[in-house]
Amino acid sequence: MTTEEGSFRATVLTLYPEMFPGPLGVSLAGKALQDGAWSLQTVQIREFATDKHRMVDDTPAGGGAGMVMKPDVLARAVDHVADGRPKLFMSPRGKPLTQARVRELAAGSGVVLLCGRFEGVDERLIEARDFEEVSIGDYILSGGETAAIVVLDAIVRLLPGVMGNALSGETESFETGLLEHPHYTKPQEWEGRRIPDVLLSGNHGAIDKWRRGEAERLTRERRPDLWEAHKAPSKK
Amino acid sequence: MTTEEGSFRATVLTLYPEMFPGPLGVSLAGKALQDGAWSLQTVQIREFATDKHRMVDDTPAGGGAGMVMKPDVLARAVDHVADGRPKLFMSPRGKPLTQARVRELAAGSGVVLLCGRFEGVDERLIEARDFEEVSIGDYILSGGETAAIVVLDAIVRLLPGVMGNALSGETESFETGLLEHPHYTKPQEWEGRRIPDVLLSGNHGAIDKWRRGEAERLTRERRPDLWEAHKAPSKK
Repeated sequence: MTTEEGSFRATVLTLYPEMFPGPLGVSLAGKALQDGAWSLQTVQIREFATDKHRMVDDTPAGGGAGMVMKPDVLARAVDHVADGRPKLFMSPRGKPLTQARVRELAAGSGVVLLCGRFEGVDERLIEARDFEEVSIGDYILSGGETAAIVVLDAIVRLLPGVMGNALSGETESFETGLLEHPHYTKPQEWEGRRIPDVLLSGNHGAIDKWRRGEAERLTRERRPDLWEAHKAPSKK
Repeated sequence: MTTEEGSFRATVLTLYPEMFPGPLGVSLAGKALQDGAWSLQTVQIREFATDKHRMVDDTPAGGGAGMVMKPDVLARAVDHVADGRPKLFMSPRGKPLTQARVRELAAGSGVVLLCGRFEGVDERLIEARDFEEVSIGDYILSGGETAAIVVLDAIVRLLPGVMGNALSGETESFETGLLEHPHYTKPQEWEGRRIPDVLLSGNHGAIDKWRRGEAERLTRERRPDLWEAHKAPSKK
């Protein structure tokens, strides 16, 4: 796969390269891929198994259910592609992904994403190759692949030139530390429900104030954790 | 698309039906789909637009960037498929998805997932059709589609008969309220790093104790929020 100089390079290490680009080949991310705003390389981990059965996993030390991905096989796959880009291991044990981290990653040259399967990967591989363990949320997936797709979706929309309207990103949830205010569009009345009068007033000061108030209310009601962080004095 | 009686039925409302099944057509979820453990129906929202341009969005009331999905068009699409299954709207403003909620959804008859695009959807649609707003994490995606794929991936692996080894699910992260302990497999020594001796001892009591201790240590260090919840007395 060729890569445009300067464009964002994503490499995914997986046992299921056929899952990619998947939804990332469509719409916004797909157009950006075609336009060369980013590139996507998949690496089949199994190609780095050296025994005749191409084993990528083995039984867990100490017993128990499931299989564990072998450190030696994974290390060969990682070493084949590593070049200083951040290396992320998709894992429910990882640090929760935030929009701030997505923004940092999007500002870099690319990312290497390791997708685990089975019970997990050998801990020594994570330590020895200095992987950043990243969780997209507090739930369990069948493997790291769908998480990697989410991480890339979040990154790609922030790459230069990808979003048509750059303004569109700035008032979104998390960018201000608050959840986003409610949206309305025509018709003015629908099923007996009206758009709030203030939004039809043409008074931009009042509209901004209403939106800010709604964003604060929603954040307070739905996400007290974000609200506390928003109110707290900056750590800088 | 035909549906097996009693199997889990997923319906996705989207402007990009070609994103599905995507990664869900491969591996564990793909095999379960073929085997009839679940079914997947996509609905093209645009087919429910009635004007000659098939408009699904319009400018935001009160001004601002981006476009908002129209309540009347979305309502027709929802009403076409709604049948008592939980209706989820994928949204960064939503309640964070948890493994407990995934387990509840997997125990039901199915789910209807609405995928937004652009700035969002008209608030009146969410209220009038009683959507549960669900967030998969604190970051912004290009649309709800990749989030819907994650929700379905998490659900499908819990459906009856899908995971080969049922035991495999029980010690995972979140199922115990703790992050999962580290895993190791052969070789015993790799790049000078050894598997912890206790895991090679054959002493199952000591192994269980070590794993529990590591799970507690990791949770305390990485996720003080989960650790506090784990320690707190049950609310029941």
